[in-house]
Amino acid sequence: MAKGAMKLLDKFIYVLIILNVVAMVLESHESIMLQYADAFRLFETASIIIFVLEYLYRLRQAYQVNGSSGVGAYAFSFFGVIDLLSILPFFLAGLSNVDGRFIRILRLFRLTRIFKLGRNSESFNTFIQALVKIKNELYFTLFLSLLTILFSASAIYFLEHEAQPEKFSSITESIWWASISLATVGYGDVYPITAGGKIFAAIISLVGIGVVAIPTGIISASFVEEISEKRRRQEK
Amino acid sequence: MAKGAMKLLDKFIYVLIILNVVAMVLESHESIMLQYADAFRLFETASIIIFVLEYLYRLRQAYQVNGSSGVGAYAFSFFGVIDLLSILPFFLAGLSNVDGRFIRILRLFRLTRIFKLGRNSESFNTFIQALVKIKNELYFTLFLSLLTILFSASAIYFLEHEAQPEKFSSITESIWWASISLATVGYGDVYPITAGGKIFAAIISLVGIGVVAIPTGIISASFVEEISEKRRRQEK
Amino acid sequence: MAKGAMKLLDKFIYVLIILNVVAMVLESHESIMLQYADAFRLFETASIIIFVLEYLYRLRQAYQVNGSSGVGAYAFSFFGVIDLLSILPFFLAGLSNVDGRFIRILRLFRLTRIFKLGRNSESFNTFIQALVKIKNELYFTLFLSLLTILFSASAIYFLEHEAQPEKFSSITESIWWASISLATVGYGDVYPITAGGKIFAAIISLVGIGVVAIPTGIISASFVEEISEKRRRQEK
Amino acid sequence: MAKGAMKLLDKFIYVLIILNVVAMVLESHESIMLQYADAFRLFETASIIIFVLEYLYRLRQAYQVNGSSGVGAYAFSFFGVIDLLSILPFFLAGLSNVDGRFIRILRLFRLTRIFKLGRNSESFNTFIQALVKIKNELYFTLFLSLLTILFSASAIYFLEHEAQPEKFSSITESIWWASISLATVGYGDVYPITAGGKIFAAIISLVGIGVVAIPTGIISASFVEEISEKRRRQEK
Repeated sequence: MAKGAMKLLDKFIYVLIILNVVAMVLESHESIMLQYADAFRLFETASIIIFVLEYLYRLRQAYQVNGSSGVGAYAFSFFGVIDLLSILPFFLAGLSNVDGRFIRILRLFRLTRIFKLGRNSESFNTFIQALVKIKNELYFTLFLSLLTILFSASAIYFLEHEAQPEKFSSITESIWWASISLATVGYGDVYPITAGGKIFAAIISLVGIGVVAIPTGIISASFVEEISEKRRRQEK
Repeated sequence: MAKGAMKLLDKFIYVLIILNVVAMVLESHESIMLQYADAFRLFETASIIIFVLEYLYRLRQAYQVNGSSGVGAYAFSFFGVIDLLSILPFFLAGLSNVDGRFIRILRLFRLTRIFKLGRNSESFNTFIQALVKIKNELYFTLFLSLLTILFSASAIYFLEHEAQPEKFSSITESIWWASISLATVGYGDVYPITAGGKIFAAIISLVGIGVVAIPTGIISASFVEEISEKRRRQEK
Repeated sequence: MAKGAMKLLDKFIYVLIILNVVAMVLESHESIMLQYADAFRLFETASIIIFVLEYLYRLRQAYQVNGSSGVGAYAFSFFGVIDLLSILPFFLAGLSNVDGRFIRILRLFRLTRIFKLGRNSESFNTFIQALVKIKNELYFTLFLSLLTILFSASAIYFLEHEAQPEKFSSITESIWWASISLATVGYGDVYPITAGGKIFAAIISLVGIGVVAIPTGIISASFVEEISEKRRRQEK
Repeated sequence: MAKGAMKLLDKFIYVLIILNVVAMVLESHESIMLQYADAFRLFETASIIIFVLEYLYRLRQAYQVNGSSGVGAYAFSFFGVIDLLSILPFFLAGLSNVDGRFIRILRLFRLTRIFKLGRNSESFNTFIQALVKIKNELYFTLFLSLLTILFSASAIYFLEHEAQPEKFSSITESIWWASISLATVGYGDVYPITAGGKIFAAIISLVGIGVVAIPTGIISASFVEEISEKRRRQEK
């Protein structure tokens, strides 16, 4: 296929994705959904057909460049998986008489279409490279975050369970408090009321937030480093 | 015009802007507004006249330096637009018998006067240069933030709509929850109550907040880099 | 005075400051205050006498090193002002029959004693140097933060005043919402409920928080730079 | 012991720790606890025995490498203390007829087992090295955070005590507000309502949050620096 045609196709897919996202948002409004149900169904079917064709086209293209190993590389790449996930639910839903709950979960997969927009962005590649460079440290700091959350949840459970048995009913429940507190969101639906719980929450708020914020900090720093390195290379 | 006179004019405009801001704040107190309504109207009219003269003067100055292309450059520059926006509402409001709602929105434009204070600041230029250098990455990370918010809003809608139909009535409504949660403000007016919603909110709080915080991170880092580069140049 | 004696004096002052802080915290508990009122008053008087002597000693020392210019330099330095503020209220309170409200405000000055602990810390000096290096940028970003808060407060006032006249009664009142939201604290006592207010709050949450977070970002970055520069100098 | 066997042992200990964490989370669910109480007790006893054996093995290994000084080095190292803390409660609880409250606090020590997972991670070492390099600055900024919290708590106590005597009953109580506000969690259970309290809270929110966020900022920056230094060394 000619390069000009491919660029046009890319743009068409972009516009289609954005329309899909808009449709999904509009569909969620009950009044709009009731009035235009048929139009939405039609649009969804048309979109799926195009996305399936796009997927097949990308598979074929990958095969032409690198043979079956190219197909595998694409199929298991980030965007390969995204491409598959965004068409899969349509077929799974049509398979048999599945229950409503399962279909609703499947519809969540439609959301992955949003990420298809990221393809072909140079910044996205720079970003991914920055992530790859600190991969090990990222795993480590995310693991540290999880440990901190689990530790906080367990400690607050032991300290608050007796005073607020419904809100801190188990460590599993307390993870909700720990996540929302350490991410500094703090909705205010659960918070410690005993002296011990408050002292622990105050200390962990200051120390734990630091721990949970480190992944973000190193991603930003690595990204900026990658940007300036790229600029230096271009200047040479 | 002599340089001394121009500096004096700049200072006069600065003082006038600050008085405008103070007036706007005072006007919002009903008791003060009722007592001094005439004074406020007079001051607003006088201010507008001066700002119009300032705008014309800046247009003329731009013409003298670069001809009509200079006028265009000024008119579409950041401060050129700000200068225009801060005088426009007065004329639009006076055009015809417009309704109250429209006038209130126009009054919002008066706020843009605040930004006129940023002109002539050396740090502001350094800041803008730092932003320009990471322009593409900034667009990309802001786009990523929007994607994350939209994705979170859609997912929480599917997970919580049934349990809290008024609070998560549509994806559009859920964007409110997603923005306030991912910005870690967390007012506590809307939050998930189902197990699925809580699990998703906990995960997205930790991952999504990182994504939303990246633009800030790279702006700060780029600004600091620009500052040290400038210092190095001055030392040479 | 011998060096050993001076070090001992420094340590004594440190311990006294910490005891002062502990006393202040304990005094705030009504039951403790009632029982030990005399002891607290005695300790406060003794502390003041020692702090006055310390202040006079520092003034004399500054005079011996640099004459009257040295006295001025000390008196208007950060710790010189702190030293004065921490003894001033005692004398002002004793001047005449002042009302209770004024005395309570004076007691706030006792808090400044806490900052006396910062003297002689090497890290404190590194920190101050880091701040001085980005002084202009810090002023600029703090100014930008204030602008952002004022702008947000004004905008939310125009958008929410009609729907929630008690909570957003004036721009002055709305500054409370803007500060707490942009600092991402989000107590949840005030938040927008109209569509316009929510849209504005969502946008400003993402953009404005970035602006307000920049001062912190550049302080941290400059501090880290200063630390590594110092280390490099020491290695040479 | 052969290297292969040691690696296998390490993996076994890892799996055991994770199972311990899972058991702790499950035990907190009352219904599960009631049904499988015996199984949990058995598993806990078995775990303790293995952890004791592990501790003795590590002590012996340390002795073989560095004699009694090696034993001391291990026993007082971070993981040495963690290893001891995670087995200690079992013995203390069995000592005599201790009351329930004490046992609950002892159970908190079981949480330390989570941290045993951090051993042998290369990233953990890099992280620790990054922390060591900025040790002094970290102490200083943490001290500064504590000062800021104490200062904020005292000031808000003086400003809000009269208006909300139950919520700001003493400076000790006000520390809860200060910690949660400056960490930007903001549950919304306590917040100022007087004009003075609101003005102070708004200012301290912007300035104080910056101060409290500095430790996190310098940890992230130092960590990233350490990572790129390590990479540079490996490239050579």
